[in-house]
Amino acid sequence: MQNATITDKLREECGVFGAFGKEASLAELAYYGVFSLQHRGQESAGIAVSDGSSIASFKGQGLISDVFTKEVIMDLTRSNDKVAVAHTRYSTAGAKGIINAQPLVAQYLNGGIALAHNGNLVNAKKIRRDLEKEGYLFQTDSDTECILNILAKNKYRGHVSALGEVVRLAEGAYSLAMIYDGKLIGLRDPAGIRPLCIGKKNDTWIIASESCALTTVGAELVRDVEPGELIVIDESGLSSYILSDRRQDGGLCIFEYIYFARPDTTINNKSVYLQRHKMGQQLAKEAPVEADIVTPVPDSGRSAAVGYSQAANIPFTEGLIKNRYVARTFITPEQSEREIKVRLKLSPIPEVFKDKRVVLVDDSIVRGTTIKSLINIIKEAGAKEVHVRISSPPYVSPCYYGIDTPDADNLAAALYTPEEIMENIDADSLHYLSLDGLLKSVGGEKTDYCNACFTKNYFAGRIKNE
Amino acid sequence: MQNATITDKLREECGVFGAFGKEASLAELAYYGVFSLQHRGQESAGIAVSDGSSIASFKGQGLISDVFTKEVIMDLTRSNDKVAVAHTRYSTAGAKGIINAQPLVAQYLNGGIALAHNGNLVNAKKIRRDLEKEGYLFQTDSDTECILNILAKNKYRGHVSALGEVVRLAEGAYSLAMIYDGKLIGLRDPAGIRPLCIGKKNDTWIIASESCALTTVGAELVRDVEPGELIVIDESGLSSYILSDRRQDGGLCIFEYIYFARPDTTINNKSVYLQRHKMGQQLAKEAPVEADIVTPVPDSGRSAAVGYSQAANIPFTEGLIKNRYVARTFITPEQSEREIKVRLKLSPIPEVFKDKRVVLVDDSIVRGTTIKSLINIIKEAGAKEVHVRISSPPYVSPCYYGIDTPDADNLAAALYTPEEIMENIDADSLHYLSLDGLLKSVGGEKTDYCNACFTKNYFAGRIKNE
Amino acid sequence: MQNATITDKLREECGVFGAFGKEASLAELAYYGVFSLQHRGQESAGIAVSDGSSIASFKGQGLISDVFTKEVIMDLTRSNDKVAVAHTRYSTAGAKGIINAQPLVAQYLNGGIALAHNGNLVNAKKIRRDLEKEGYLFQTDSDTECILNILAKNKYRGHVSALGEVVRLAEGAYSLAMIYDGKLIGLRDPAGIRPLCIGKKNDTWIIASESCALTTVGAELVRDVEPGELIVIDESGLSSYILSDRRQDGGLCIFEYIYFARPDTTINNKSVYLQRHKMGQQLAKEAPVEADIVTPVPDSGRSAAVGYSQAANIPFTEGLIKNRYVARTFITPEQSEREIKVRLKLSPIPEVFKDKRVVLVDDSIVRGTTIKSLINIIKEAGAKEVHVRISSPPYVSPCYYGIDTPDADNLAAALYTPEEIMENIDADSLHYLSLDGLLKSVGGEKTDYCNACFTKNYFAGRIKNE
Amino acid sequence: MQNATITDKLREECGVFGAFGKEASLAELAYYGVFSLQHRGQESAGIAVSDGSSIASFKGQGLISDVFTKEVIMDLTRSNDKVAVAHTRYSTAGAKGIINAQPLVAQYLNGGIALAHNGNLVNAKKIRRDLEKEGYLFQTDSDTECILNILAKNKYRGHVSALGEVVRLAEGAYSLAMIYDGKLIGLRDPAGIRPLCIGKKNDTWIIASESCALTTVGAELVRDVEPGELIVIDESGLSSYILSDRRQDGGLCIFEYIYFARPDTTINNKSVYLQRHKMGQQLAKEAPVEADIVTPVPDSGRSAAVGYSQAANIPFTEGLIKNRYVARTFITPEQSEREIKVRLKLSPIPEVFKDKRVVLVDDSIVRGTTIKSLINIIKEAGAKEVHVRISSPPYVSPCYYGIDTPDADNLAAALYTPEEIMENIDADSLHYLSLDGLLKSVGGEKTDYCNACFTKNYFAGRIKNE
Repeated sequence: MQNATITDKLREECGVFGAFGKEASLAELAYYGVFSLQHRGQESAGIAVSDGSSIASFKGQGLISDVFTKEVIMDLTRSNDKVAVAHTRYSTAGAKGIINAQPLVAQYLNGGIALAHNGNLVNAKKIRRDLEKEGYLFQTDSDTECILNILAKNKYRGHVSALGEVVRLAEGAYSLAMIYDGKLIGLRDPAGIRPLCIGKKNDTWIIASESCALTTVGAELVRDVEPGELIVIDESGLSSYILSDRRQDGGLCIFEYIYFARPDTTINNKSVYLQRHKMGQQLAKEAPVEADIVTPVPDSGRSAAVGYSQAANIPFTEGLIKNRYVARTFITPEQSEREIKVRLKLSPIPEVFKDKRVVLVDDSIVRGTTIKSLINIIKEAGAKEVHVRISSPPYVSPCYYGIDTPDADNLAAALYTPEEIMENIDADSLHYLSLDGLLKSVGGEKTDYCNACFTKNYFAGRIKNE
Repeated sequence: MQNATITDKLREECGVFGAFGKEASLAELAYYGVFSLQHRGQESAGIAVSDGSSIASFKGQGLISDVFTKEVIMDLTRSNDKVAVAHTRYSTAGAKGIINAQPLVAQYLNGGIALAHNGNLVNAKKIRRDLEKEGYLFQTDSDTECILNILAKNKYRGHVSALGEVVRLAEGAYSLAMIYDGKLIGLRDPAGIRPLCIGKKNDTWIIASESCALTTVGAELVRDVEPGELIVIDESGLSSYILSDRRQDGGLCIFEYIYFARPDTTINNKSVYLQRHKMGQQLAKEAPVEADIVTPVPDSGRSAAVGYSQAANIPFTEGLIKNRYVARTFITPEQSEREIKVRLKLSPIPEVFKDKRVVLVDDSIVRGTTIKSLINIIKEAGAKEVHVRISSPPYVSPCYYGIDTPDADNLAAALYTPEEIMENIDADSLHYLSLDGLLKSVGGEKTDYCNACFTKNYFAGRIKNE
Repeated sequence: MQNATITDKLREECGVFGAFGKEASLAELAYYGVFSLQHRGQESAGIAVSDGSSIASFKGQGLISDVFTKEVIMDLTRSNDKVAVAHTRYSTAGAKGIINAQPLVAQYLNGGIALAHNGNLVNAKKIRRDLEKEGYLFQTDSDTECILNILAKNKYRGHVSALGEVVRLAEGAYSLAMIYDGKLIGLRDPAGIRPLCIGKKNDTWIIASESCALTTVGAELVRDVEPGELIVIDESGLSSYILSDRRQDGGLCIFEYIYFARPDTTINNKSVYLQRHKMGQQLAKEAPVEADIVTPVPDSGRSAAVGYSQAANIPFTEGLIKNRYVARTFITPEQSEREIKVRLKLSPIPEVFKDKRVVLVDDSIVRGTTIKSLINIIKEAGAKEVHVRISSPPYVSPCYYGIDTPDADNLAAALYTPEEIMENIDADSLHYLSLDGLLKSVGGEKTDYCNACFTKNYFAGRIKNE
Repeated sequence: MQNATITDKLREECGVFGAFGKEASLAELAYYGVFSLQHRGQESAGIAVSDGSSIASFKGQGLISDVFTKEVIMDLTRSNDKVAVAHTRYSTAGAKGIINAQPLVAQYLNGGIALAHNGNLVNAKKIRRDLEKEGYLFQTDSDTECILNILAKNKYRGHVSALGEVVRLAEGAYSLAMIYDGKLIGLRDPAGIRPLCIGKKNDTWIIASESCALTTVGAELVRDVEPGELIVIDESGLSSYILSDRRQDGGLCIFEYIYFARPDTTINNKSVYLQRHKMGQQLAKEAPVEADIVTPVPDSGRSAAVGYSQAANIPFTEGLIKNRYVARTFITPEQSEREIKVRLKLSPIPEVFKDKRVVLVDDSIVRGTTIKSLINIIKEAGAKEVHVRISSPPYVSPCYYGIDTPDADNLAAALYTPEEIMENIDADSLHYLSLDGLLKSVGGEKTDYCNACFTKNYFAGRIKNE
């Protein structure tokens, strides 16, 4: 299988970026912005720019740096452009991939739309069926096309009202960056499941999935878009509209803090890195162990491992080395042993592990296959004991809001108790961070976050669209 | 400039192909079929197949043989498929090209549609505007998307009625091959501007732009689709509906006989090759000249040249050799002399021309640039006289029905008299076939053909859509 | 199989081109030159240029227009360059292909060499072995590398003497174009098997496999390089050396006149087109038949068919239409019927053949598979009789001098009598041109040409190198 | 510039791998092996396999995962193969790149050679000239081709003697993996500048630049190849020959421990990770500072930073986040500010740095441009003080033994004192590890290592070949 997923991490499905202002090249700004969101989707990418009348766009499959050559960015650089949106995506592979790549671009009565969407509408099938009954057709498989058609249908309403119709009809997760009749639009669902923030660089306004994109392009973080808030940016500046007074339980996906977001991102004024550090500290309090070294599964467990090490006063050491080039490697079916797949990606330093009692820290266990191989590798390298510490609660139920999760019957924690998992993976001990401990680390109440993957409490609907 | 158009020929914009039946691989059948229509469009290609419920498709930019590798055809080969359509296109270049490639595929209330279109709707802008007012949006630049939306809008009508609505609204040229809820649909505009024919290979029904596609896949020509006729093919066989009783003046584009169609194609029971042969014979009667040899501009003038030679009793000889590999060559801007561009494509045999009086036969003069270079080359090779004979009338006005034509101010015959052109190109004489002579050659009245390019008589509307 | 050989024509293995002079871009001149020799090899191509001290080169697999983009030619354009050579090749496919692509470029004691070779050394294995015994190594599979090593070994001799050593050692066919210490070298084997000619364009000297390359770049044909002649071109002009006084029987490959060379080429002051025309005339005398039309297998049989038609006074008609795009098509193994393969390439015009007695003219029969399918197709199209006329004698024995031929047990004429072949291919009659008739057509004695493929008289050795 | 080098790290030029044994696919084993050496060269890669008589090989430009698709590895998998070598390279770009890619493959009198070389011969020019005088020629620009020709020249000697001749003539750095007449050869220069080790996996022998390649393929490290030692592996097992009794000062490149080798590699029985950890500890002793956090420049400074943190008892924290996708990004010339280039790769976590006194640890300073931008970024993120600690001495002089180094006038430490650099980069303090401290960390005397980049003591010659 080409491009095998060698470790069993969850995958965020999208990142969005938008900019409004006078730049030497808005396309280039968008490129740098979406580049810094590459971790949110690695399979297709697109940029659309507009001068207020016509929209030019380019989309392709692959990493952003493969899709956008310098020539393409030059082609997309037009001196009159004032607004741009960009998107990166974990998309379905194959021939249809390019059709579903975003931003989706369309013409409707009032002009052009370019739409970039992070999240997943849980009632897209129903919306689509209702629209089809009214005579609409769909050229993609994407739930995002529903939003386009709702906007076209409500063409005679003003922007705010038409987007209000989107909020009224759509259920689930959506953080949108949009070119809409020459304006830059940002919109976040009433629960605020996926992040979206506002930045400014001189006179140019920016919206982005994560603040790390602002840092990269040299912009300042202004604030997060609020749940249910519509942001309209044009020559007269930024206007804000609260489109939903539905006060929903739930909110930001707590896994953005645990794993998805980049550690240098700030969400709701909280540093993702520090949140992970605190999770590690809390985990040390909840699940101490006598050991000689603390070592992370790189890179996902590093922040929590440093926190654990400091709270537990056990030396932090890097004992597993990650091969930086592994993303594109194929694994032949012949190569049936799972361990070579893991070893291609992560390699142990025997001198670190020899005769040591090891605390191995990671952010989560999904299928549980990789952690088992890692423990085996670490023990072969000479470790006496391997104690696994996970900086989040057991992951028991799939996500329907924009994350690529295996079915429940492939989730280790949905099938087995921690003790069973511990035995299965040959760990000397295994502890998860408690939900209370997690909430204590990140601050806030249970109802402030979407935590359905730990609790099965799907406040925002759970019909996953195919 | 990469892929320079070295000679100034007109370009047909599309070819369509469809098949319904049980074949080992419908995708492969469609591939061979559309391959034999490659001369009708060289810039993008697509195939869609359906088992009656889901549609699989693949589209790409380039020649058919570049777009469709064996692997792609294998991927498109599903044992349950029963219907396929394919398309080849001369499309606008660049990033948007792939978006506009056909067949267009969409889902609407009743299922899937895959639509391949040859021709051009002259009122597409108005249709589009009307549909936008009703809340529809457009994701491509193509006039063909109008047809998709008309069908979606009329979803509660039966097939025949919905397609009747297309015929009622659409003006201009359209020969369609379509997968529509698991059936194969063929439809030709009431004037019958672009060709479309029906064939059969064992139990498999086929529709195609030209009968040469039938010959290639081993099918028999059954008959042409009539102007204004709708063909519906499913398990119960072929049904025919006459959707228009508008008896329109005009009809088949007469240039299909002159240049566009492949010589081995039969349209309206008439062999294209023989029609061209007759045009050459008629031309010899209308414009005789004392000469030593008759030679064609290959390949377009060959059939008429053979006819001229036989009627004039002057030996036929091939004096210009065509480089078969020229299609993809670039010409650098530095290479300003036009003649090297021509010589790369067509090279003279000096021994043929030395001291000879030459009749040079071609099908048409568009800009007039190439013929001038050719005459110069032939004279440098030693010819005493070059008499140009064109097997069609002066081309004075652009086509709005699916042909890529230069603007009128780039058409030699729109700007100059034949005498002026003769002098400009350094010919010793220049004669065009008369319109009457042309009609006599192909059979029929002036009103049986669209001949607006010679007469400016645009019976079917002339607003060219951008 | 991708890129199937659909008809069974022989394939020339190479074309060479060289230029010495001050041009705006020697690389571009070489590009146009080798482009016009594309018919001599379609699988790899290369250009090398030199300013007298350093050599820059680029080689790649595929058609010349695929290998050389405008950017590559620009990169190869250096203002001080004074000499260039180029090569096009039918090469072995796969990973090794690029290693064997030419020009071969090397550094030796006195400077750089870039060598382009058309032909095949029959004693390459022995030369290689001898050189290996002296401590030389070989990095390619090519016989051409022997010549490089002979030159390096004779580094202390002057140019003429070192090249004399090549002539002394090498047996078989070689027409060379070479950059050698800043000079342009042309060398032809003492039998003169492969063609090589000299041209001039203003102050720029050119050597090329065929004169059609001169015509394309706007140069005049000066003369052919003589068998055994060495041409050295530098700032002081052209010097000629006769390196061999061996007067060999045999000479120019007679198949260059029959099929390989482009019809607009002149070899030994004889037009290839006219030679083929004469072969057709002679064939009409030797093998007349009552018939209604003469039609060629396009494009290879056209010149002879016109000649046959005129001598026999039977109308010439084109009845088979060639698909210009067929070169790159794949044929799946599933598609077992040979006829679809043929039909993809050649399609009959039924109206031409209906109830006709047909003379079908081609230049040669190799395996005999295609001609059988063609006769079948023509008869299905309605022909009453098909009389096959071949404008060369039976091809009974493989070539060892630079042509890709099947083994003798795949050559129809090596296995069967003309009568047997006639029956096998379902022809109503079959006649080959006699060797005497061929010689009469082209002029000269049997010993003036290499005709081993007809006579098995391998004057120049027959050990084919792998 | 495409693929800009964003940080100014030195680049190792090559990695080699070889295997002898019966494996399901030796090519696949070699692929995994060389894949784990990707950090030693990212611009071209190759694998050669042999069954003892013929050699099959594939080479290409780009990352290993781009060059070797599954199909290519399948093609290279032959059931009889018994020996393989592979290479990865930082090579010169452009058309010539592929010519210089390794393994170099050649035929000489006794059979085939495939040669993979890590290092650089300092007297290659002289060897080449001497060989040219004897009549040898060179088809590449690579110093490695000298070794091929020396072997060919000494064809009548046995293997050991011919390779002894290589050792006698070649000066500089060379660690070789070679297929030589069906045997696997490993050879290391008498100083042992570049690493080379021996491993075993069941009955398969392996040699590799670093032991991390052994770990990846599941092999055990047997031992390092000794300086001046020749290893010959065939069916009868491993034989060892000491080809040089020259006891040379100098030895292993000390920068392998500092930066080049992967941390999970073991060289001379010493873990690279632990060596770096010790360097960090030693640095803390030599250059203590009052600070709040220790943070590395990821990934190169991490091991030393952990060591520094533990010895200094200052908390270790990751404050700079590395974008994993940056390798292929282009930077337009318009984007003149250096800082966006750095920010694309490394992004600060403001909450980590706010009001902190920071110890920033890296392994070396080459040009000094990146560290300056990083300090600026860290201070903008709120740091009060930034103290730079470098875990190696000032890098004052270029490497001639296989490392891509800038000229001396681009080396910060060659031009400025540490104080001047400190001021220039706006650090609050700057300290390098002393050479004595470095030797104390890694163990051994000054003469046990090549340390010319710190001392200009080029024991093995310094003529860098172009």
